[in-house]
Amino acid sequence: MTRTLGTCYYPEHWPEAWWPEDARRMADLGLTWVRIGEFAWSKIEPAPGALRWDWLDRAVDVLTGAGLRVVMGTPTATPPRWMLTKHPDMLAVDAQGHPRGFGSRRHYCFSHRGYRKEAVRIATLMAERYGDRVAAWQTDNEYGCHDTVLSYSDAARDAFRDWLRRRYQTTDQLNAAWGNVFWSMDYASFDEIDLPNLTVTEPNPSHAMAFRRFASDEVVAFNRAQVDAIRAHSDAPIAHNYMGRVTEFDHYEVGADLDIASWDSYPMGFLLDRVGASEADKQAYLRQGDPDFQAFHHDLYRAVGRDRWWVMEQQPGPVNWAPWNPAPLPGMVRLWSWEAFAHGAEAVCWFRWRQAPMAQEQQHAGLLRPDSAPAQGFHEAAQVARELAEAPEVAPVRAPVALVFDYASQWAWEVQPQGQGFDHFGLCLDLYRGLRGLGLSVDILPPDSADLSGYALTLVPGLLNLSDALRAAIAAAPGLVLTGPRTDLKSPEIAIRTPLGPDLPGLPAQSVMEETFPDRRQLERGGAIKLWLEHLETEADVIERTADGTPVLLRAGRRFHLTGWPDRDAARRLLGMLAREAGLGTIELPDGLRVRDTGTERFVFNYAAHPQEFEGHLIAAADLLRLPRPS
Amino acid sequence: MTRTLGTCYYPEHWPEAWWPEDARRMADLGLTWVRIGEFAWSKIEPAPGALRWDWLDRAVDVLTGAGLRVVMGTPTATPPRWMLTKHPDMLAVDAQGHPRGFGSRRHYCFSHRGYRKEAVRIATLMAERYGDRVAAWQTDNEYGCHDTVLSYSDAARDAFRDWLRRRYQTTDQLNAAWGNVFWSMDYASFDEIDLPNLTVTEPNPSHAMAFRRFASDEVVAFNRAQVDAIRAHSDAPIAHNYMGRVTEFDHYEVGADLDIASWDSYPMGFLLDRVGASEADKQAYLRQGDPDFQAFHHDLYRAVGRDRWWVMEQQPGPVNWAPWNPAPLPGMVRLWSWEAFAHGAEAVCWFRWRQAPMAQEQQHAGLLRPDSAPAQGFHEAAQVARELAEAPEVAPVRAPVALVFDYASQWAWEVQPQGQGFDHFGLCLDLYRGLRGLGLSVDILPPDSADLSGYALTLVPGLLNLSDALRAAIAAAPGLVLTGPRTDLKSPEIAIRTPLGPDLPGLPAQSVMEETFPDRRQLERGGAIKLWLEHLETEADVIERTADGTPVLLRAGRRFHLTGWPDRDAARRLLGMLAREAGLGTIELPDGLRVRDTGTERFVFNYAAHPQEFEGHLIAAADLLRLPRPS
Amino acid sequence: MTRTLGTCYYPEHWPEAWWPEDARRMADLGLTWVRIGEFAWSKIEPAPGALRWDWLDRAVDVLTGAGLRVVMGTPTATPPRWMLTKHPDMLAVDAQGHPRGFGSRRHYCFSHRGYRKEAVRIATLMAERYGDRVAAWQTDNEYGCHDTVLSYSDAARDAFRDWLRRRYQTTDQLNAAWGNVFWSMDYASFDEIDLPNLTVTEPNPSHAMAFRRFASDEVVAFNRAQVDAIRAHSDAPIAHNYMGRVTEFDHYEVGADLDIASWDSYPMGFLLDRVGASEADKQAYLRQGDPDFQAFHHDLYRAVGRDRWWVMEQQPGPVNWAPWNPAPLPGMVRLWSWEAFAHGAEAVCWFRWRQAPMAQEQQHAGLLRPDSAPAQGFHEAAQVARELAEAPEVAPVRAPVALVFDYASQWAWEVQPQGQGFDHFGLCLDLYRGLRGLGLSVDILPPDSADLSGYALTLVPGLLNLSDALRAAIAAAPGLVLTGPRTDLKSPEIAIRTPLGPDLPGLPAQSVMEETFPDRRQLERGGAIKLWLEHLETEADVIERTADGTPVLLRAGRRFHLTGWPDRDAARRLLGMLAREAGLGTIELPDGLRVRDTGTERFVFNYAAHPQEFEGHLIAAADLLRLPRPS
Repeated sequence: MTRTLGTCYYPEHWPEAWWPEDARRMADLGLTWVRIGEFAWSKIEPAPGALRWDWLDRAVDVLTGAGLRVVMGTPTATPPRWMLTKHPDMLAVDAQGHPRGFGSRRHYCFSHRGYRKEAVRIATLMAERYGDRVAAWQTDNEYGCHDTVLSYSDAARDAFRDWLRRRYQTTDQLNAAWGNVFWSMDYASFDEIDLPNLTVTEPNPSHAMAFRRFASDEVVAFNRAQVDAIRAHSDAPIAHNYMGRVTEFDHYEVGADLDIASWDSYPMGFLLDRVGASEADKQAYLRQGDPDFQAFHHDLYRAVGRDRWWVMEQQPGPVNWAPWNPAPLPGMVRLWSWEAFAHGAEAVCWFRWRQAPMAQEQQHAGLLRPDSAPAQGFHEAAQVARELAEAPEVAPVRAPVALVFDYASQWAWEVQPQGQGFDHFGLCLDLYRGLRGLGLSVDILPPDSADLSGYALTLVPGLLNLSDALRAAIAAAPGLVLTGPRTDLKSPEIAIRTPLGPDLPGLPAQSVMEETFPDRRQLERGGAIKLWLEHLETEADVIERTADGTPVLLRAGRRFHLTGWPDRDAARRLLGMLAREAGLGTIELPDGLRVRDTGTERFVFNYAAHPQEFEGHLIAAADLLRLPRPS
Repeated sequence: MTRTLGTCYYPEHWPEAWWPEDARRMADLGLTWVRIGEFAWSKIEPAPGALRWDWLDRAVDVLTGAGLRVVMGTPTATPPRWMLTKHPDMLAVDAQGHPRGFGSRRHYCFSHRGYRKEAVRIATLMAERYGDRVAAWQTDNEYGCHDTVLSYSDAARDAFRDWLRRRYQTTDQLNAAWGNVFWSMDYASFDEIDLPNLTVTEPNPSHAMAFRRFASDEVVAFNRAQVDAIRAHSDAPIAHNYMGRVTEFDHYEVGADLDIASWDSYPMGFLLDRVGASEADKQAYLRQGDPDFQAFHHDLYRAVGRDRWWVMEQQPGPVNWAPWNPAPLPGMVRLWSWEAFAHGAEAVCWFRWRQAPMAQEQQHAGLLRPDSAPAQGFHEAAQVARELAEAPEVAPVRAPVALVFDYASQWAWEVQPQGQGFDHFGLCLDLYRGLRGLGLSVDILPPDSADLSGYALTLVPGLLNLSDALRAAIAAAPGLVLTGPRTDLKSPEIAIRTPLGPDLPGLPAQSVMEETFPDRRQLERGGAIKLWLEHLETEADVIERTADGTPVLLRAGRRFHLTGWPDRDAARRLLGMLAREAGLGTIELPDGLRVRDTGTERFVFNYAAHPQEFEGHLIAAADLLRLPRPS
Repeated sequence: MTRTLGTCYYPEHWPEAWWPEDARRMADLGLTWVRIGEFAWSKIEPAPGALRWDWLDRAVDVLTGAGLRVVMGTPTATPPRWMLTKHPDMLAVDAQGHPRGFGSRRHYCFSHRGYRKEAVRIATLMAERYGDRVAAWQTDNEYGCHDTVLSYSDAARDAFRDWLRRRYQTTDQLNAAWGNVFWSMDYASFDEIDLPNLTVTEPNPSHAMAFRRFASDEVVAFNRAQVDAIRAHSDAPIAHNYMGRVTEFDHYEVGADLDIASWDSYPMGFLLDRVGASEADKQAYLRQGDPDFQAFHHDLYRAVGRDRWWVMEQQPGPVNWAPWNPAPLPGMVRLWSWEAFAHGAEAVCWFRWRQAPMAQEQQHAGLLRPDSAPAQGFHEAAQVARELAEAPEVAPVRAPVALVFDYASQWAWEVQPQGQGFDHFGLCLDLYRGLRGLGLSVDILPPDSADLSGYALTLVPGLLNLSDALRAAIAAAPGLVLTGPRTDLKSPEIAIRTPLGPDLPGLPAQSVMEETFPDRRQLERGGAIKLWLEHLETEADVIERTADGTPVLLRAGRRFHLTGWPDRDAARRLLGMLAREAGLGTIELPDGLRVRDTGTERFVFNYAAHPQEFEGHLIAAADLLRLPRPS
């Protein structure tokens, strides 16, 4: 597939006289896409109903006239100030009960039905006007950014009660499902049920989990309403731009309503803010970003987009929002872009075209400086464009290893971590890192995957509950499957399974006790288990134990089960053993060096700040290598 | 006295068909007691006034029919949801002004008079029905858990004003007592006085201290109302189950209205959450609990119960609520239980019979697993039951050393720590630890103790103010008495005494300056003073100084005064000197090894994760030794 | 100029019978000044309009009768409780929306117009009565203490809207100035604009900056109203007592309305609470205070007072409010006092005369103990008084080096730090420390300084924007001028300058990228850049680079520009190079030793806890040396 480039542009921020020159320079740089519109509501509709399309018409004219393809964003992440006057109760409310006010962005509650109608109205108007002029759509911007998915507003409370009525029909059934008898928490009416914040001590985990499912559903519904509005007037594909490590809503479900997944990749801000990196890793990768975090999201959103995905916003230089904001090492802007293509991206768009001199993001670099001169990222973008002009094809391929990632499990373990630091995303990222350290390419799968037949090895770590489809797929899988730790111990409502879980096809085992700890349990053969250990009764073979004899890795034929969260050494050793058992070639990669295989090529990326060797090739710091794919 | 065992059981959580088998297994295990009822209000009274006793009648029938003795808990810690509809203003309010809502437990303000009446009503109904069928009562559950004693509700404010009127009669007297002239804080009416939260900077410590006294009194009154209701219909003894390091109310005062003190002992959760342990100690005792914390509470609640006390809830395995929740080392469940008996407990009851698969505590182990199979704790409980069947007698004895612990002093130094980390509990625990490291058994005494004649050595550290009774007792004590640091420097209202305190019988000294610091002041002969040092003018003998010459230990005959908070080395050295001076035999115990003498035996407990030797005996990790008491 | 001493006294706290003896002892000690009145409103006006002057009349009689000169404070920092009944909405509100209630002090919002009238009323009444009897006035007490300058009350919101109307005239102009188009944040009416708290993510920095300017203006207006009221009835000079590192309002602007600047110097509390000291420095100076922090404020407030300034409150012993409150090393009370005189103070007054046994500050030492005996500070005060009696003259002098400190820049970088830890005050203090480590005396200058002709070297670090006056002064300066880092990159509204800044006379350079980081960038010749680095395009000479080649110090003739924040080693090395270039003699002072030159003398202060040598003289710990000023 041909790979393309683009940028994000805000014509309303610049004098109209600058637009033609900007468009020409974009085209000259080799860009295909230009995303516009997504924060422009106050210019489109400065007062309620007073629509001003003329400027946007002209902007689309200028951009398409220069040969660019327009991605039009609906502006619903930034409703104008008058919207709040019209709907004073539209704001999201934080867990402490404070309304989250006007003055920045995302100041709306996903559950507010009045605002949802306004969002549909503006999306409809844009689709009617530009449905046949734009090449793609983006709904809203970065759902989940700034933590508004979990809103404790009156609108959310009312919608939650309705959602509960639909899910449980009667309070008796709800009381039974949640075990409300436990502390006399039974409800006699759905109207008695509040949101699970501000309780004296922790709320019932079933109550909290229901709220998390509800909150995700509200994002899905909000997005779907816009999608339906756009589809009524446009055949162009529709995307949303997700973020890194935003897990408050089920991206697979939002993605099911969209044509393309895309995400906003800011490797350096993520390293300091979201990776959960050690201090040593922060120091090593301060100017490069984490070597696995972007790849994880590329693979995740490839699944969310059912193989159609973009990087909608790619970091082009220093940003403004991380705890510290260094400049990337020379070469990293190019490296990040090529890494996305190696993982199958259709397009990479840099955010933003020109650094804005005003407002919140004025310290966020663009491809151009505020004075319109090229910034560092511009030159690297130009190099990528040149390279792509020579070799635009990157053949997609199925990876040999799969990893199941599940949003509901993330919610479940946030609700009930049982030990500080336990979360599904972190566990999956650690195992993904272990696989990548062995030179393996990975596909990420949703939790309802029904077919594992293409994979030599599948990992199913930390799943709240195995779906029937996945359980059957595991049973039928011809490759190796590794379950655990903390997989299938609970019901979807977060109650302990009885008979005790997990219920694993072909590998009978019961967890009779689970424990968490801040220290490490050494393994007999090196490495350690950290944070989580489940104690199993099983008749399967125990092929690895802690130094004090607790089973850690069980085996029954091609089925394996892991009882604890391995540290970096243990993860690499155990996963290496499994990969070799699965017949996969592994490479012991040094820190910072990472491999990604496509259909025809092997890409090698050096995230380190120093040169590293790979099979006789020296790769400079922040550089990459393209080799033919090994047969 | 014969020592007995028991467990906590929730018949309402399980099918009625399971009850007989559960009861039989309890009896077979050797249990005497079964506590029920304390969270069952929504099953007893599912709607206001609609009482359902039948199921509870049958549960009592089944349990007593199996030979068990029932401890009935009043369910007032978990009022049903309809109660909140009936009394919308019943909730406690946190210091930031947020009501602490329904959805977990303890969602009531101790000051709400309407709810207090409801509590008396349900207690009366239960006492009428079961007064002659149960063997003991428990009021409510864990007063002070989840921090609701300090409530900033309107109900609390109104009650506080009434309390102030009774205490001070006029605002002139209140203004004078509090020194309100200081910052023009004078009041002209009691109705002008708010609770001491949300002030611009710290409130007047006298104001804050009055609120602390009031808040404690409210717990006492709430409990007393239930006790009176029960006593009107039952002769069975009444207990409450206190917690570890809960100090918001005066347990001596609550205990004065009860027949038995009991407490809920969770050594491993406490280690991480409440001991204030160093990182090294957390690592060393992660799977055992702190070696002195349980013993301190055993001794404290023995005082609160005037020698009648139980462990009402004993940890049987991993819990769910600490920052991390490891499994105890094998042997610890037995060790903890025997330690309680060695300190004089009448009964030890494990919480809970069967791990619940649902709701907030589903990861909290029971004696049984959720699938009813025996869990780790079951086997250790069985061992304790067997051992007890052979030797049920543990002769009580008065300890040779006493330590005065005072709730009001805890409040005072929370209000006015003067340096981060100063609190009365911590100071007392440090000195208690020093005594225990010397092999000494200790009695804890209330601050109004009038007779110290039985003790070779009495410690009176960190007392806000000496009561007249205690001052006289010190004067008359035949043994050694150690006062200080920070003892008797203030009035009960928290004002500096003039003439300057302390006013110590037989040891004239005046503190002319007090200082706090984060570093350590070395002593001439080893060890150091940390955090607190008072500078005294005195004519007593100075028998220990800091390296720079400040007096640290004063002596006048059999009276000693300590001016600073000693670190572990200094505490052991100075207390050892005093103990020997008092004619007590001391043993230099290694970390983790602890001794407790009863009337006839010497118990030696090894909290360490490795074997340790005691007088030629090797004690395994998490094991104990019973020797004859040395003569 | 003759230097004088004083103390702070609260006659309303003590029996009237004690006043004559107190006054006599003050006079005997050699004090000139006694400050009274500033917390006494509830005694002056116990009920609305019920004025009680008699006691204050007598207090003034007694004090002046003993030969003391009275500084009268207006009591507006502590309005009585009835004021809140009269003006229920007068309270400041915190950023979370909580009113900051009665019960301590400073419980008013600077924007509340009703309270401002009350403040003017009481100031007028006091000035009418005592205008010709007192020797000086103090308005209110410690503006900015306890963080009430930034108030989010309704009163503040309304006043802010008025302020915006005056500043911008139309919302179109405001929208353009703030760049509100960025995220559809445009306003159609000033009444739509809220205070910039509780936004979903960070507010527009221009919005936040406007609020900071407004909040400062409100303090200026509040103070001016009192000054006008006093001046109408009194010719005595008027002061306010500022604090250490309070930067929420522009002290230069408040100072412009006053005759004398004064400040409250608590070196030991500041070390732990406000210096931002390293752990090593906290340990080294725990009982002395930071060696540069007091001097910085002496020099700052000398600028604010246009050479007339006092220490209104000098720490006399341990205080009560810091995280820990140790006793000063013997000698420090004297040292601090002399250091103030060496920097040009007219008077030093110790806070307080006698330690109060009651209320919030009961653990705050006075010159007297609560029992009226002399405390440690009394004896050192007596020594200072004796020394001053022998040599009261300390000749003022202009320093050879100037440093520009700007409150607006502090606000700007709080609003937009761009990397954790960036603030203007900290940057200025670090450079000041570097200068002082070279033995240099420094003048601090306001940002509108128009004449640098007296300085051999001027530093202009971290200025949001150069005023026209300062830009012209730099151009005309005969000495060396060092600008940067982060100087003049933005507009006063916090927008990036285009053409890119800075706009430096004689040193053309443009910052094309700015970055922040938590690590250090080594310099070629030793030391490192921390936290901030701007990348410049320039044709000036690069005389220092980072090890990886980024320009760090530029030079064009006598103009220098620094691109990063130097660490301690780099600061001393680079500033030493500049000082020598400027023809100034430098001394490499060891830690803790500091020099201050007056017109005739060289003072050498030893803040270290050990003796140090200076030019052959051994200076004891906490001692000082007076030498003739070197020619």
